[in-house]
Amino acid sequence: MKIKALLFDVFGTTVDWRSSIIKAIQRELKNKNIDVDAGKLADEWRAEYDPSMDPIRSGKRPYQRLDILHAENLKKVLERNSIFSLDEEQISRLVYSWHNLKPWPDVISSMARLRKKLILASHSNGNISLTLNMARNSGLNWDVILGAEVVGTYKPHPLSYTRAIEILDLDASECMMVAAHNSDLSAAREQGLRTCFILRTKEHGPLQSIDLKPLQNWDYSCNSFKELADYFNC
Amino acid sequence: MKIKALLFDVFGTTVDWRSSIIKAIQRELKNKNIDVDAGKLADEWRAEYDPSMDPIRSGKRPYQRLDILHAENLKKVLERNSIFSLDEEQISRLVYSWHNLKPWPDVISSMARLRKKLILASHSNGNISLTLNMARNSGLNWDVILGAEVVGTYKPHPLSYTRAIEILDLDASECMMVAAHNSDLSAAREQGLRTCFILRTKEHGPLQSIDLKPLQNWDYSCNSFKELADYFNC
Repeated sequence: MKIKALLFDVFGTTVDWRSSIIKAIQRELKNKNIDVDAGKLADEWRAEYDPSMDPIRSGKRPYQRLDILHAENLKKVLERNSIFSLDEEQISRLVYSWHNLKPWPDVISSMARLRKKLILASHSNGNISLTLNMARNSGLNWDVILGAEVVGTYKPHPLSYTRAIEILDLDASECMMVAAHNSDLSAAREQGLRTCFILRTKEHGPLQSIDLKPLQNWDYSCNSFKELADYFNC
Repeated sequence: MKIKALLFDVFGTTVDWRSSIIKAIQRELKNKNIDVDAGKLADEWRAEYDPSMDPIRSGKRPYQRLDILHAENLKKVLERNSIFSLDEEQISRLVYSWHNLKPWPDVISSMARLRKKLILASHSNGNISLTLNMARNSGLNWDVILGAEVVGTYKPHPLSYTRAIEILDLDASECMMVAAHNSDLSAAREQGLRTCFILRTKEHGPLQSIDLKPLQNWDYSCNSFKELADYFNC
């Protein structure tokens, strides 16, 4: 079947979350006289991301939007690092800095090409307002914002993919998941979606050790959104 | 508070459903030797729309996407009119003709202006794929597709509005409902949203008898999307 819709992972695949979050942390810690590595804090914050969604995936906790989890996780990380000098307003600004991440340089122009032929859906664990505000801040143009808040659970729960294709009213094989993460693609493939791996060697900074190559024979693997637009002859 | 997001009704406000549906019915009935007024059929089909959502609004029936209700309602109308010569494929084409409605002439260019300053959200009783396909077919550009499938119930249920603003992470007074229907605006106002009435004198054809004027002192009333864009100095 012909591919009609691309479902994009966002954090790491479409946008460079780490650089933006490091800058946001540096802004809030400036003049606080705290000797801390903003990169380390960003990585610790991100490390809480996946485990914090587990109780929701397993049904132990009702769905909470990612903004809520980001706030809870940040407070945990600040406490662990004995940083007590940020007030609620600063914590809120940091949480909302996830609404303002910058796309990788190859993204905007290639998405404009892809959109001429294909439905472009965000399918992120970010909540709707996060994805919406990020799109308006960065010039991303989605045909439709799907993701956790629309499907009611977090990737890589199988329902995340099956509900997305049901909502799109398409066959699984008409949808391609695009991600820089082998685990996301593996879960999508199990539900019958096509898969595209985008190599992002800098998502986790200079010491990145995961997702440095495709771990399965994905339907397509490439190094940029530009190559993806070329692949579809857009 | 400053308005940050416009929530648009779609059927009748943004697109001219009646002309498109009449043409679709005429296409399917051609060569069937059936003496029937396509306008009357379209109006009968639309008249089933609101009552068919009632059991869902009241919780008696779980949420069903509008495509399902459109199919059920069409079969009822065809039977009532003793039209038995349409096969399942033709009925399906008619149901999907709601994915391909044409915007009123003032819409596309004015939305491009409005989008520079404001979040443009569809907030329709149409399902996501209906609104998405219509947008791609017609050149509508939404920042985000909200509506019944995202909020889990049908307008004018109060939850339809409160969940929409919660999802947008905005205050009710930062959101303006834009509709050609006084009833939609009245329900939105009850939840604290701002309101804009757009006069559409031809939505129900030449004999339209309702919504020919604003029935309350809405925050703004006008005759076109162009006037709305002017109002916001876009």
